[in-house]
Amino acid sequence: MEVVKILSLVVDDEMAGRTAASAEEIMEDPSIDTVVEVMGGIHPAFEYIKSALEHKKNVVTANKAVVAACYDDILALAEQNGVSFRCTAAVGGSIPWLVNIERACRVNELTAVGGIMNGTTNFILHKMLTEKAEFDEVLKEAQDLGYAEKDPSADIDGDDIRRKLLISANTAFGISLPEDDVQTFGIRNARLKDCEWGADQGLTLKLAGFSEKKEDGSVSAYVAPVFLGKEDVLSAIPANYNLVRYTGTYCGIQSFIGEGAGRFPTAHNVVEDLIDILETPETFYTMKRTACPVSNESVLLPWYIRTAEESLIPESFKAEACRGVFVTARVSVKEMLDWAVKSLEKDNKLFIAAIG
Amino acid sequence: MEVVKILSLVVDDEMAGRTAASAEEIMEDPSIDTVVEVMGGIHPAFEYIKSALEHKKNVVTANKAVVAACYDDILALAEQNGVSFRCTAAVGGSIPWLVNIERACRVNELTAVGGIMNGTTNFILHKMLTEKAEFDEVLKEAQDLGYAEKDPSADIDGDDIRRKLLISANTAFGISLPEDDVQTFGIRNARLKDCEWGADQGLTLKLAGFSEKKEDGSVSAYVAPVFLGKEDVLSAIPANYNLVRYTGTYCGIQSFIGEGAGRFPTAHNVVEDLIDILETPETFYTMKRTACPVSNESVLLPWYIRTAEESLIPESFKAEACRGVFVTARVSVKEMLDWAVKSLEKDNKLFIAAIG
Repeated sequence: MEVVKILSLVVDDEMAGRTAASAEEIMEDPSIDTVVEVMGGIHPAFEYIKSALEHKKNVVTANKAVVAACYDDILALAEQNGVSFRCTAAVGGSIPWLVNIERACRVNELTAVGGIMNGTTNFILHKMLTEKAEFDEVLKEAQDLGYAEKDPSADIDGDDIRRKLLISANTAFGISLPEDDVQTFGIRNARLKDCEWGADQGLTLKLAGFSEKKEDGSVSAYVAPVFLGKEDVLSAIPANYNLVRYTGTYCGIQSFIGEGAGRFPTAHNVVEDLIDILETPETFYTMKRTACPVSNESVLLPWYIRTAEESLIPESFKAEACRGVFVTARVSVKEMLDWAVKSLEKDNKLFIAAIG
Repeated sequence: MEVVKILSLVVDDEMAGRTAASAEEIMEDPSIDTVVEVMGGIHPAFEYIKSALEHKKNVVTANKAVVAACYDDILALAEQNGVSFRCTAAVGGSIPWLVNIERACRVNELTAVGGIMNGTTNFILHKMLTEKAEFDEVLKEAQDLGYAEKDPSADIDGDDIRRKLLISANTAFGISLPEDDVQTFGIRNARLKDCEWGADQGLTLKLAGFSEKKEDGSVSAYVAPVFLGKEDVLSAIPANYNLVRYTGTYCGIQSFIGEGAGRFPTAHNVVEDLIDILETPETFYTMKRTACPVSNESVLLPWYIRTAEESLIPESFKAEACRGVFVTARVSVKEMLDWAVKSLEKDNKLFIAAIG
């Protein structure tokens, strides 16, 4: 493998003699057979990926936003042009996640994917509990350490996890979920008292994504805070680590733990993808992409609700006061997340979490 | 793929028309290109594997004993005959472990492998602590559930883990360790009071294997009980699950959790191996096998010692009485395990554990 041309806003000594003046220069260079896209964002990343595939160049990316938003288009383009597309670094950072889903699908039918898919929010929740620190304080620390962006919305509102969950479910189940339908509630409103409420009962607060394929073919997918007991290893994942897992017909539950981001951990998966393309041309995780709606109606869970506006809570939730907050009967993910997102307009400090 | 012939002591309806009268019948059938060996034990498994490789048939096995004992011979035979040898199911049961080591080695230098590699002993230690039950009672339960053999020695004395650790280290580091030099101490003498001593201090007793490659090229490898704090995810692995992990230069620590044994979980990895051979002929995890001694002298740890014979403990250990047992200063794995194995002759109830 040889790095022929680099298109970058910042140029350093290592790039000398290899910088490209434009994306076209790369697309039109016949000596380049593979393009690595690590610029992030949807535009112009998608246009560059599209152009590379149309020029019959393989594409490797670590950019989850563009894969989540343009999944169908990218797959169709890769297929039409007979080239490879891989994005292992886009989900789980350092973890060989999508490639193991791909392998497992050769033997198993996968029925569930999910886990802790964002190191920043796991770092925040872990630190809040272990150091009895408040959300704002720990978020600032995460920003100072470079774990969280200056605008942390994509992390703390769960958007980053939603994209990773969508890519995982699409790959594992051979489907194409509409991103907007993956219901999402983040930890922007999580406070130390929420963590402590759980800890008093042996439960740890985590932000996680879950997607399940039922026997009837319907697929649930959502991102939400969840209180987990010690019997779930997810509850033990520290700092900025991720735990992602799938369930298969024969392999059972397989879990993978590694750093969720970082320069070399992420870059190593980009290089793994490049080697996979060298070894197995025309490779993509799966070519199946049946359009599939999200069905969160049948996932029933008890929920934790913290609100100053008790009157907002529907009677159908059968919520009971419990140590300063409310705990509901089993309510569907669909109903609860619709209600919670809408209710933020009236109580902007509202916090909810599934009790797992 | 098609199953052509089956050699088995027990014949059932599914095998009808496909049973072989002898191993030779399989070896001499030119329509068979790959042999799966799942009989266990070293002899005659090794002779069958040897014969298959010499007949230029690929071999897939789930038999860790024969791989650990005959590693060099099997690799040389596979290489000479230009055929594949794979044994993913031999380590970690359901976990795609060796294949991920193989993939990681393409990009990283691996520097450590290990973890909880035996579901039976993890089940026993987990159950002792959570149910306040004594060793013998839980061992019997494990036997009744089919987790433990009638003669449980290979599990509870750590031999099973030693073999899996050896195969993992050989594959990850491209070396060949002498099996006898991998120092091993099991949990035959573990008692509820040992588990509780740890629990009182927030530590969980586990049986694990560890192998590390130092910068100078020396390799440590040992199996021992170890008390682990909550910050190590190993401490949270429940029941008959395994957690195996490697550390690489770029990927950092990658951990894999799954069931360590079981009919379908193990069989699925045999089928994965068969697909790998179909897709990539002449495949083995690594062809490197530099002979390498075990160096446990420089791994220094504090140790827990429970013995009724205080006089057995050397002064050099600087052991101090602590809540009914002894806790040493940092003593090398080499020195401690040599001493502990020898001291069992004088105190057959002696128990030791590293404090991790």
